[in-house]
Amino acid sequence: MQEAQQATNVTFDEINIGDTATYSRLVTEREVEMFAAVSGDHNPVHLDPEYAAGTQFGECIAHGMLTGAFISAAIAMELPGPGTIYLGQNIQFRAPVFLGDTLTVTLEVISKHDKKPWVTIATTVSNQDGKDVARGEASVMAPTVKETVTLIPPPSVKLVEADD
Amino acid sequence: MQEAQQATNVTFDEINIGDTATYSRLVTEREVEMFAAVSGDHNPVHLDPEYAAGTQFGECIAHGMLTGAFISAAIAMELPGPGTIYLGQNIQFRAPVFLGDTLTVTLEVISKHDKKPWVTIATTVSNQDGKDVARGEASVMAPTVKETVTLIPPPSVKLVEADD
Repeated sequence: MQEAQQATNVTFDEINIGDTATYSRLVTEREVEMFAAVSGDHNPVHLDPEYAAGTQFGECIAHGMLTGAFISAAIAMELPGPGTIYLGQNIQFRAPVFLGDTLTVTLEVISKHDKKPWVTIATTVSNQDGKDVARGEASVMAPTVKETVTLIPPPSVKLVEADD
Repeated sequence: MQEAQQATNVTFDEINIGDTATYSRLVTEREVEMFAAVSGDHNPVHLDPEYAAGTQFGECIAHGMLTGAFISAAIAMELPGPGTIYLGQNIQFRAPVFLGDTLTVTLEVISKHDKKPWVTIATTVSNQDGKDVARGEASVMAPTVKETVTLIPPPSVKLVEADD
């Protein structure tokens, strides 16, 4: 039995312009295979090293929107955290992500609405070399009620070859 | 041994403004659990029916960016397909996605650059009731070389309870 993990949100009233948070994830073959399975994008540039060697990238690259998934998790887990309603995201993909890269999402609050609990957050994703792989902005409805939630332990995912 | 599936791209020269394509995916607990595992967002609104019942949604909802993952797969698999470079995406989340929903991504080419192989594609995602759950635009670099690729069979993903 794992110990239950918890997460506490940051409410609209508590949020200040300039607040920052970070969230890091290692990208491995496992993440890329899971993203292929969940999205349905089974292109060989992500999954076939032999094919990828012949592309401009020279090796397998992660799906661009895997970076988007990490941004969404940073918002949902860190700032503002549980209870946030995701209103929108724009994202520019600036550099390829390779297997073995560690991506760090940096969030920075850049504006708060005068009346409604709407917050705009700059979202920058960089790799272990400090190179930005994605930039953009998130629009969220921040929670107005302070809350600590119990996180659901992640399922252990086993990837099994599709061939018999 | 599964039969190898293939996908053929649509090159920049072949693309016309007004071209459309669609891509549909069923959202189940499996997709939501996989997205939680790959992104790291383990909020109970997605994974704990008892908690979700007490929220404004009344039941578990999918992660918003799962819809983004489907948009990216539509572009990579259908239009323009293999060889496309994803430059950017903006997305507005307009309605919650529930387990059991079937989402359809509709792509429509809305502009082509005069000189470079850049294409802007309107991306609309609707559920089985015809309600739009997300809207936005993708910016892509379309392939300039016609290509048919062999898709890598999706790994069979087994989700195992994290508790011992």
